[in-house]
Amino acid sequence: MELQKKNVDKISSSEFSKLIGYSASQIRQDFNNFGGFGQQGYGYNVVALYNEISAILGLDKEYKMVVVGAGNLGRALINYTYYHRSGFVVEGIFEINPELIGVKINNIEISDYKYLQEYVRKHKTDIGIICTSKDSAQDVADKLMEAGVKGIWNFAPLDLKVSDDVALENVHLSDSLHFLAYYINKYNE
Amino acid sequence: MELQKKNVDKISSSEFSKLIGYSASQIRQDFNNFGGFGQQGYGYNVVALYNEISAILGLDKEYKMVVVGAGNLGRALINYTYYHRSGFVVEGIFEINPELIGVKINNIEISDYKYLQEYVRKHKTDIGIICTSKDSAQDVADKLMEAGVKGIWNFAPLDLKVSDDVALENVHLSDSLHFLAYYINKYNE
Repeated sequence: MELQKKNVDKISSSEFSKLIGYSASQIRQDFNNFGGFGQQGYGYNVVALYNEISAILGLDKEYKMVVVGAGNLGRALINYTYYHRSGFVVEGIFEINPELIGVKINNIEISDYKYLQEYVRKHKTDIGIICTSKDSAQDVADKLMEAGVKGIWNFAPLDLKVSDDVALENVHLSDSLHFLAYYINKYNE
Repeated sequence: MELQKKNVDKISSSEFSKLIGYSASQIRQDFNNFGGFGQQGYGYNVVALYNEISAILGLDKEYKMVVVGAGNLGRALINYTYYHRSGFVVEGIFEINPELIGVKINNIEISDYKYLQEYVRKHKTDIGIICTSKDSAQDVADKLMEAGVKGIWNFAPLDLKVSDDVALENVHLSDSLHFLAYYINKYNE
């Protein structure tokens, strides 16, 4: 966390708000909804705050991840999580394309998709990242869930069906682009 | 649109809901909020529906886009929008890295970042896609806005400051990953 690096030990909620772009009272309100710490005027203790937020978000643990689909998006995410990892570690990459199997990305060798379930079971993978085409995505999700992942990060352009005990985050880039178009037109009417 | 391709001419709102995953009454409600078309029991005319939705979302127009930053993520988006384009056309790619300048992606030559503003002004680019590092992103956004873009699609991990008349869509992948971790922990308490 940036403030920790800079050795700032205490920070007021108004300084904190400048840093993250919310108002001070909004921040206090948000924290109160989580259970409450930090008192008006006292200043948050940055290290304690960081640890609390990490625990709330489950970022005090390590997550083992696999990427399915090693196209440009898959590669971008592997590099992204490699660089930004704060407990999120890509350990396996799976592909159906024989030309990519055996190639290394960030020192991880791309494996044959047929070994996905065996790998996930053996390594107790937490998160499966789906970077396949729309047509394959549900099958990949089903295989990941059957093998025991706890969460799916889906980049394929469809709404996956997942079991109630599996966490799902969809990143629908086309939706985001469509929102952008909508607002461009709204602002330029 | 898939239904148009399949030559389905009319579709009931319950069929439509199966396709997109909302309930029939929710769909009618949503459309009513936009101004109302489609009557219960009559079935939507798919082509008319498609055209109406396109117009509401501003998808009946063409959007000229540039990508700034030609790393893996930039490349993924270029391929993505190239493949999925329905009016969203990447026409220019800009980089600061001399090794990438001159390289072609999808038949578009990567240009030197110093020509970004000249290009945007000349081609009346609508949307700038920011795939740079966090440190460069605000500077890129400022240059894009100064040159006249109407919207910014930001993939750099920070909240950009943009003028009121410029549309902004942030895709914060780390936020998405953090939400996933949060839900994984919630479901496994």
